[in-house]
Amino acid sequence: MRALTIEPEGVLAVREHPDPVPGVSEVLVRVRAAGMNPADLGQRMGLYPAPYGSPPDIPGLDLAGEVIARGPYARRFSVGDRVMAVVGGGAQAELMAVHERQLMPVPDALSWEQAGGFPEVFVTAHDALVAQAAVRPGERVLVNGAAGGVGIAGVQIASAAGAEVVASVRSPGTRDAVVALGAAVAIDPSEIAGHGPYDVVLELVGASNVESDLRALNLSGRIVVIGASPETREATIDLAVLGAKRATIRGSTLRSRPFEDKASAMRAVEREVLPLVAAGRILVPVAATFPLADAAAAYESFVQRGKLGKIVLLP
Amino acid sequence: MRALTIEPEGVLAVREHPDPVPGVSEVLVRVRAAGMNPADLGQRMGLYPAPYGSPPDIPGLDLAGEVIARGPYARRFSVGDRVMAVVGGGAQAELMAVHERQLMPVPDALSWEQAGGFPEVFVTAHDALVAQAAVRPGERVLVNGAAGGVGIAGVQIASAAGAEVVASVRSPGTRDAVVALGAAVAIDPSEIAGHGPYDVVLELVGASNVESDLRALNLSGRIVVIGASPETREATIDLAVLGAKRATIRGSTLRSRPFEDKASAMRAVEREVLPLVAAGRILVPVAATFPLADAAAAYESFVQRGKLGKIVLLP
Repeated sequence: MRALTIEPEGVLAVREHPDPVPGVSEVLVRVRAAGMNPADLGQRMGLYPAPYGSPPDIPGLDLAGEVIARGPYARRFSVGDRVMAVVGGGAQAELMAVHERQLMPVPDALSWEQAGGFPEVFVTAHDALVAQAAVRPGERVLVNGAAGGVGIAGVQIASAAGAEVVASVRSPGTRDAVVALGAAVAIDPSEIAGHGPYDVVLELVGASNVESDLRALNLSGRIVVIGASPETREATIDLAVLGAKRATIRGSTLRSRPFEDKASAMRAVEREVLPLVAAGRILVPVAATFPLADAAAAYESFVQRGKLGKIVLLP
Repeated sequence: MRALTIEPEGVLAVREHPDPVPGVSEVLVRVRAAGMNPADLGQRMGLYPAPYGSPPDIPGLDLAGEVIARGPYARRFSVGDRVMAVVGGGAQAELMAVHERQLMPVPDALSWEQAGGFPEVFVTAHDALVAQAAVRPGERVLVNGAAGGVGIAGVQIASAAGAEVVASVRSPGTRDAVVALGAAVAIDPSEIAGHGPYDVVLELVGASNVESDLRALNLSGRIVVIGASPETREATIDLAVLGAKRATIRGSTLRSRPFEDKASAMRAVEREVLPLVAAGRILVPVAATFPLADAAAAYESFVQRGKLGKIVLLP
């Protein structure tokens, strides 16, 4: 099979690799679409090696495609079924062998490119808001970085859960779009203090916001921090405020979790999110698609500000 | 009734107050012992006013005594029963009217002075370790400030839960005592890094430790911070480490919580801690007792380092 390959010094090339063979409970997926995520850039720069169990040199955490073969005890899906998954790496390739418990069915409402951009950001946002922050109807949720992949997912999941969503975005041009996705209001990050208090904060930007998040937090509020970039990783926390508010600050990373955690997170998304996707109540915006051979252009496009929706590779 | 009273400029005096009258679901308690806690000092200095529903000028969060009268619908206890409670304030007095759901029975194993020193610290430690940090058998728990009131409770509760406890204390003279209470090892705070990784940290000292707590934390570790003092309230957190470890930092304060939260916390202590107290497996060390008239001396004794166990007033 051909796969996007990270070569020395971060050079991207499409190379031949041996075809994967599905294990006893695995299926072989013909990858139709593979979303891009910040982890791909980190891995290309040598800052974020693939976790144990994933190919070290093939990037890609998101895949959608068809089942073309099954291991001897794989039973959840049949050949021809449309499936999608979050994996630890290796998705930006023509083929991938995936454990059947790590796969979700693709609703008819999603095109291949949407399905390829769905798993990582929706599983991450659902796990953070529902499993970790336990968001409840009527709560006020702040999503910082709402125009990014996880942000778009978070705005829709929190809104569908009955919360009132305040969405902060850095590019004013994306405000209308995040309101259309369900945010009650879209604001500049400088306006966070004026729209609280927040019961839950989904923090997708980093330390520059955490101090104002804590000041604007409600009693028993929860801040979930995902993906701090190197330049925004040091936050100063006032422990007296943390204590008086009985607040929680939690870090979350999906990629490094063990298989069973990821599989459980996907079961929860199957139960709670896929019915809303099937009903057209949750949308998966795609900003642009690229063939695997144009991966370098895709990676450049990924870091540009002001876009809304996923960048998806089509192997 | 007579009660310890905070007068202007923090002067302590024993004054006459009207006898409290128990409401429909309350009982009137003749207070035999009332433990001292850091909140009393804060309230005396004007930094920590009593919460809504508590007398503004009578300190004291801990009480133990006998039921001497019941409101018309109070049924949990009878006249003559030995009871104890965490209250929002007002315990350092001869009498107090307390809702029956806020009271716990006093096991025969506890003297009055031990019972007066039990509620606040054991409810706080149990809530932090069990309800909030969800400590599990086999986990490694670091208790920072293990010789203080909450620390002594935390070491014993974590040890009884099947965890391995590392206890840090600032006064070397208290090390043997915290080991005798169930810690696997007692260390100086400078040695925290060498004894991890920790699944749970009960942080009773403050910001000076939080950075090393996070560095020494295990994957999915939980830090619960209680009672940061003004000089140790600013902590710098590395969000990238927080995320990679999927760590949680949580602030906890018992005093400001609503009635139902405190009552629930006491039900949990009744179920899980009092049987161990009754069996002699959990001890309540008392460092010194003072009559109400000597409260000023008690308050001075409270801030001295190197003691182990509670300071208890005997109204």
